[in-house]
Amino acid sequence: MGGPEIERLISLLSKLPGLGPRSARRAALALLRQPESRMRPLAQALEQAAQQVKTCSQCGNLDSTDPCAICSDPSRERDVICVVETVGDLWALERAGIFKGLYQVLGGVLSPLSGFGPDDLNIAPLFHRLETQEIREIILALGATVDGVTTLHWLYEKLQPWNVKITRVGQGIPMGGSLEVLDEGTLTAALIARRPA
Amino acid sequence: MGGPEIERLISLLSKLPGLGPRSARRAALALLRQPESRMRPLAQALEQAAQQVKTCSQCGNLDSTDPCAICSDPSRERDVICVVETVGDLWALERAGIFKGLYQVLGGVLSPLSGFGPDDLNIAPLFHRLETQEIREIILALGATVDGVTTLHWLYEKLQPWNVKITRVGQGIPMGGSLEVLDEGTLTAALIARRPA
Repeated sequence: MGGPEIERLISLLSKLPGLGPRSARRAALALLRQPESRMRPLAQALEQAAQQVKTCSQCGNLDSTDPCAICSDPSRERDVICVVETVGDLWALERAGIFKGLYQVLGGVLSPLSGFGPDDLNIAPLFHRLETQEIREIILALGATVDGVTTLHWLYEKLQPWNVKITRVGQGIPMGGSLEVLDEGTLTAALIARRPA
Repeated sequence: MGGPEIERLISLLSKLPGLGPRSARRAALALLRQPESRMRPLAQALEQAAQQVKTCSQCGNLDSTDPCAICSDPSRERDVICVVETVGDLWALERAGIFKGLYQVLGGVLSPLSGFGPDDLNIAPLFHRLETQEIREIILALGATVDGVTTLHWLYEKLQPWNVKITRVGQGIPMGGSLEVLDEGTLTAALIARRPA
């Protein structure tokens, strides 16, 4: 159709989450129309990111520095740690801009089905922090999935030996959400989590 | 959130068709997790495509050779030319595998609103082919949009001086389509294009 270079580009693009074969072709065409202004810059951005970005040894975030910008920011509260599953979750919370403490990125959740066990969780730095620093609160911000809840309970038990406040994020109706379209689980959680109006 | 390299990568990815800010972040994260096995190969594929891929001077297709693989394929019928708007349309027809002739990629359609006029259409190679080779049929495979139909009529007039059969692709109900969800225009076209069962 368009030579091996185009086929290879489409094949790599189609493996990105959110892109299928059809949208990968559209993306490839859009890039091919502007090789100098769009294609080369993207190639360079990918190469630079592959070179520069590393995993923060303290929290598991991705950044061009280790420790990451959050862990090394003196203005963040250092005695509150928010535990999240993925770097994507961390980014989402940072966009919300409400949390000013530190993070611990687990890199996944306990999942018997996919063979992701306790040893695969990135939690050693969290325990190291608990041993060496004064931690006031640990917020478990895990997804409301079966594996997320399993991991939450497992972590809760693991954290008991330390005299630290353990909280979990609230569950209920998402902002802008209409009750009509929500699933029964969310509605149940929202009713249980009701509070004075 | 994750350093300037990540921000830049997300910003470039989010400009691809089919990707918004949210899916660009997901794509960037997926790539960052596998810098060597996914990120670098994509960077290299983009760089290679930017270097190798050119526009075919005969038909307007994109390929690593000029003339493109279709124009230089001796097994294609050289006396039937299918006129399409974009390279994406050409690829779609090639996937269907039904057309065995040559193409002419216009690069767009006449659009008074966006200022795309007759001089912007890539049609000179088509007239050159009409002058120098024996052409039996020209198939106008343009989109069923206002601009597509305008371009079709304009081309039809332009092609009159040559003694060549001019056809246009059929209109009607798409394969697998249910009448219930189709718009009135398509239903009208399908009724007009009816034929013995």
